Amino acid sequence: MSRCMPLSKEIPPMKDLTSDNITENVKILNNQTSSPRVRYVFDRLVSHVHDFVRETCLSTEEWQAGIDFLTAAGQISNELRSEMTLLSDTLGVSLLVDAINHPRHGKATEGTVLGPFHTHDAPVAESGYVLHEDQEAAKLLVLCSVQDTSGEPVADVVCDVWEGDAYGFYDVQNPNRIRPDGRALLRTNKEGKFHFTAVVPVPYPIPMDGPVGKMLTLLKRHPNRPGHIHFMLRKAGYDNLITALYPRGDPYETSDPVFGVKESLVVDLGTVNDQISRAYNVPVGTKMLKYDFVLVPEQEARELRAKRAEEAVKNLDFDVDLMDGLPVLAVD
Amino acid sequence: MSRCMPLSKEIPPMKDLTSDNITENVKILNNQTSSPRVRYVFDRLVSHVHDFVRETCLSTEEWQAGIDFLTAAGQISNELRSEMTLLSDTLGVSLLVDAINHPRHGKATEGTVLGPFHTHDAPVAESGYVLHEDQEAAKLLVLCSVQDTSGEPVADVVCDVWEGDAYGFYDVQNPNRIRPDGRALLRTNKEGKFHFTAVVPVPYPIPMDGPVGKMLTLLKRHPNRPGHIHFMLRKAGYDNLITALYPRGDPYETSDPVFGVKESLVVDLGTVNDQISRAYNVPVGTKMLKYDFVLVPEQEARELRAKRAEEAVKNLDFDVDLMDGLPVLAVD
Repeated sequence: MSRCMPLSKEIPPMKDLTSDNITENVKILNNQTSSPRVRYVFDRLVSHVHDFVRETCLSTEEWQAGIDFLTAAGQISNELRSEMTLLSDTLGVSLLVDAINHPRHGKATEGTVLGPFHTHDAPVAESGYVLHEDQEAAKLLVLCSVQDTSGEPVADVVCDVWEGDAYGFYDVQNPNRIRPDGRALLRTNKEGKFHFTAVVPVPYPIPMDGPVGKMLTLLKRHPNRPGHIHFMLRKAGYDNLITALYPRGDPYETSDPVFGVKESLVVDLGTVNDQISRAYNVPVGTKMLKYDFVLVPEQEARELRAKRAEEAVKNLDFDVDLMDGLPVLAVD
Repeated sequence: MSRCMPLSKEIPPMKDLTSDNITENVKILNNQTSSPRVRYVFDRLVSHVHDFVRETCLSTEEWQAGIDFLTAAGQISNELRSEMTLLSDTLGVSLLVDAINHPRHGKATEGTVLGPFHTHDAPVAESGYVLHEDQEAAKLLVLCSVQDTSGEPVADVVCDVWEGDAYGFYDVQNPNRIRPDGRALLRTNKEGKFHFTAVVPVPYPIPMDGPVGKMLTLLKRHPNRPGHIHFMLRKAGYDNLITALYPRGDPYETSDPVFGVKESLVVDLGTVNDQISRAYNVPVGTKMLKYDFVLVPEQEARELRAKRAEEAVKNLDFDVDLMDGLPVLAVD
């Protein structure tokens, strides 16, 4: 009457597991995987989760609160809202993953957190596009160029831009959203340039109505992100750049709840003069943001990543090899 | 036009965070909480999650897979299914939490994992209750006693028992479930005894249709739990006992995917003879399980837990105090 499959592989018998031997036994089972990378990731995952439980002597009630927290974070998420990303962002994990995967390259534009508000339905648009439907909002002319590390302009870069509105709300936070607003997929021209009209970014609280909001409240942390505009620049042969630009002087510039602000991404806004007004067809006196992005060739980025990975694991107290630039447990 | 609250507390400015300084800066923000225990739990959480990311050089794709995995685990969960608990079980975390919160006490019955199938709607029943509606299943007479560590019987213990059916399915796995089956809330009599009729437990695969199933497949782990009956014994003044009994000889006895089997919980089944048949009104030849549970007074359990907590943190490379028996960061 059993629905079980026969035992397919010999593994050493395990029973009577305790705080002292559970970790190695979980690893014995997990190590059946044929992928060295999966084996390594789970080895480190199990070590750290178990050490966390042991070092905190996590109580049953705290464990249950954690189970309930993660379950609720999954359940409040949908196609347009990723609470788990927000959790990663507010614990500094997203910034860390970005720092590891896109290590600082002398000339290149720094990356920062993607955030939970990126979508895949932004309209394809031409330079000059007005990002927001709101006619009353304070406008911002955004003039950008994209070059490579040797200073050459890069044409045909897909420039995915997104931004909250004049109140700091993203379109996906509007329960009546019927189409994207505050988003566009632009493209650099032959001179590597693109431009659009945004609204002047304002600071805004990250969503506080879910489990992450409860966590920030428990930790007495403020939820306010400094105002910014998101950019994701993609072209085959170049390292994907996910970044954001922050107008200088925001009250939350140095206490960002998702740790995304970098000095090189803080920008002074200018003002549109007569000449620019005529060239871009926006009123004189409109606020203006100019930025020159620098992309890294994919090969250079890959080599730098592998070099940093080697440095990152050289002081661990176990032996590690690199496979495709990523660490795996060394084979004896 | 801002929806932000003013900055309520001075924190040191942070900007330009990198792989090297993100961890300490996340902790500075989290340390604003007024609870020393919350501060400590988040300190260890952030350290371990960040170290996991650094040691694996977690790729953006792997990070995204983790976000998607946890989100899906939340979304497949409902009142009767906790995929996050199953994740904790299959990574050995639940067993570890149980071992820490209910440390082995010489005379007492050992605990084991609660599992994801406990519910709060079991019917209150009298000794002699037949757990399953299935008339055809192989029956098992279960005769239990409950005593304290000095050997005295304990009356009025609430005995929450639950079990899968003859095919290894729990009632909550039946999409057409209209009421509990295979569950009961019994109570010990003045002699500390209770009994009921179960079905002979069979091994069964844990649910493989969710993210945890995908994880086990990736890790080439079998999903089959050895057959067992769950018990949760509660009485004010005694440490809550969550445990299970495993008939000896199951093919999966030493490779349990949730690491729950302990030798002291493996039982030899007997057979009902004439005398027992008359006493309990079950046919001669029915399989029989006898077990004597031993509960620990709450105070003793608390002291043992605090002692183990002290031992657990004494070799950490940072200073820790105990507060209400739980570790917190030592104040200078």
